[in-house]
Amino acid sequence: MSELVDTLWLDEETNEVKYIDQTKLPNELLIKSTINLDDMFTAIAKLEVRGAPAIGVFAALSMYVLGVRIDGATLGDYVKEYIRCSNHLESARPTAVNLSWALNEMIKELDRFTMHRFQCSYDSKSLFDIILDDTLRGNLAYVLKTKALHIWENDIQVCKTIGENGIQFIHEGDGILTHCNAGRLATVRYGTATAPIYLAHENGMQFKVFCDETRPLLQGARLTAYELMESGIDTTLQCDNMVASLMASGQINEVFVGCDRVAANGDVANKIGTNGLAIIAKHYNVPVYICAPTSSIDMSIPSGKDIVIEQRNASEVTKMWYNNEMSHEKVKVYNPAFDVTSHELISAIITEKGVITGDYAKELEKIM
Amino acid sequence: MSELVDTLWLDEETNEVKYIDQTKLPNELLIKSTINLDDMFTAIAKLEVRGAPAIGVFAALSMYVLGVRIDGATLGDYVKEYIRCSNHLESARPTAVNLSWALNEMIKELDRFTMHRFQCSYDSKSLFDIILDDTLRGNLAYVLKTKALHIWENDIQVCKTIGENGIQFIHEGDGILTHCNAGRLATVRYGTATAPIYLAHENGMQFKVFCDETRPLLQGARLTAYELMESGIDTTLQCDNMVASLMASGQINEVFVGCDRVAANGDVANKIGTNGLAIIAKHYNVPVYICAPTSSIDMSIPSGKDIVIEQRNASEVTKMWYNNEMSHEKVKVYNPAFDVTSHELISAIITEKGVITGDYAKELEKIM
Repeated sequence: MSELVDTLWLDEETNEVKYIDQTKLPNELLIKSTINLDDMFTAIAKLEVRGAPAIGVFAALSMYVLGVRIDGATLGDYVKEYIRCSNHLESARPTAVNLSWALNEMIKELDRFTMHRFQCSYDSKSLFDIILDDTLRGNLAYVLKTKALHIWENDIQVCKTIGENGIQFIHEGDGILTHCNAGRLATVRYGTATAPIYLAHENGMQFKVFCDETRPLLQGARLTAYELMESGIDTTLQCDNMVASLMASGQINEVFVGCDRVAANGDVANKIGTNGLAIIAKHYNVPVYICAPTSSIDMSIPSGKDIVIEQRNASEVTKMWYNNEMSHEKVKVYNPAFDVTSHELISAIITEKGVITGDYAKELEKIM
Repeated sequence: MSELVDTLWLDEETNEVKYIDQTKLPNELLIKSTINLDDMFTAIAKLEVRGAPAIGVFAALSMYVLGVRIDGATLGDYVKEYIRCSNHLESARPTAVNLSWALNEMIKELDRFTMHRFQCSYDSKSLFDIILDDTLRGNLAYVLKTKALHIWENDIQVCKTIGENGIQFIHEGDGILTHCNAGRLATVRYGTATAPIYLAHENGMQFKVFCDETRPLLQGARLTAYELMESGIDTTLQCDNMVASLMASGQINEVFVGCDRVAANGDVANKIGTNGLAIIAKHYNVPVYICAPTSSIDMSIPSGKDIVIEQRNASEVTKMWYNNEMSHEKVKVYNPAFDVTSHELISAIITEKGVITGDYAKELEKIM
């Protein structure tokens, strides 16, 4: 992976966040740089940075970059402005769990610092009695940078460990199918579903990867096929409805996909199409592996049927073709963002804490 | 259906072929009119008229329309020009079986006429001794018109009978799923997969139809959803990868699809995606009905694995979006036009000669 840029990183010389503008892919690899709250908000809101883990890391790095530039007479002024920036950033994608999580981690770190150093919490009035001098600014910068870089590094480490745990399922000469983008562009590096693939490639193994284009938004075509090609992996693109044809012809040995949420019984919510893919894979005896950081396992959800599925806008299906109507202008559209795959169709869930298979309810309880 | 125009027809007052230019759908309903060989060639080559049955009927009507306008001193001159026009039209889509078939039917009719009337075949030299006067021109026009209108009417009758044979599988309140366009736009009227649907609608039944958009060329979105909406049917459009989600939620009671070819054992080649759809339907116990005129049953093909599948151009998958690259410019693309669905996944094959189910090999032999 050394020749490839990460999806996003901190430029420690200039204290800027740098990131790939994914709205320009696959036609242009544009690296953007920002120190500005409005730009950061736009980057998240306009999906220049996308993928749940990547958004979280981007927010953490952003809050450090903003933090070193906050002015003010007192620590109270500093904290007040910091919270304002954090809240604004959070509103860029209100339903993104990793965004809230990362922003919250950064605020907790700030809170721990003020508690430890000044015996007052970040929402305490007495913060306004503490002068914001250069030493204090330096300490704040150190605390926030350490935390942000920890979140960044942890993302890389979790993905890499998923890769190490999953590489056993890839064999020389295999055909591997993946759906949507659970690739490095959705994380800092490695990705989740792609982590075993990138590690196997680094180890010099030969295999082919087949990417579903993933309608309606084509993350498979635009992002996964792009990043695999950039890594020098033998990559083929197909439409979502061509999976059965590929499997019938014996070209697919295993499926790796990511996931948005894992329920306590092992049912998995992932990008629309995953369930159909898993049903077809079972028909052809092709194993399906779900690559999931443990942060996506939600033991409070008993089973897949308790996961609420977001219905998205009709225009994603009907209006992205030639900038023209792709169907009758009044047709109803069914456009769920996700579907639920029963644990019975899943061969294993690969996490950074190990591989889960068999009795999912029991094994998930053990690992969590 | 009375309020809808047919896909194509003969204007008997002006002796013109009229047809819906399907390249303008779903954004415009443009009726074109032609008496000219070049326009007819373009209509077929540029897919203004598409769908195997529709192309055949269009060619038959065209050969009548051209025939009434051929000039010449002798019957030999007439026949020579007629054959030239027919050969040129055939070259517009060389692999379209119905096109060759219909052109051949028209030539056979011309041949029968010359044999019967002048005891010479259409390729006989003595035809050049027969003066082409108004009476002969009138007789030729009558013969060709009768044959062309017979082909046109037969297409309507076959589709309607498929509809009558298939309507038993539709129940009040059903959700019906269909894939690609085996609709009236692929025929003169009624369609094949849509024939039971249109007849049920004419009978006042209430139901919903769900159309797969059908990547890569979106015939489901552009054509099927359009024609169903125009007929006043409750229509929903979804991406191909949303079928399992629809079936899991219990919204689909049966699947109707057309077919390109039926093998002697009942295996079916149809638009890419049909096989995966049938596998998912079986998983959810949803019956799959294949609507097939007997002209698409090929008893010379023992089973689906003997059907050769055409691989189509990569640009259909990678270059139709925003007029921009949809993926890495060097990515390989898997783009088969069709897939094969095993007869084991098919609940019944509905033809104009009856409904085939159970032991397909035996029942197909009986009907053919």
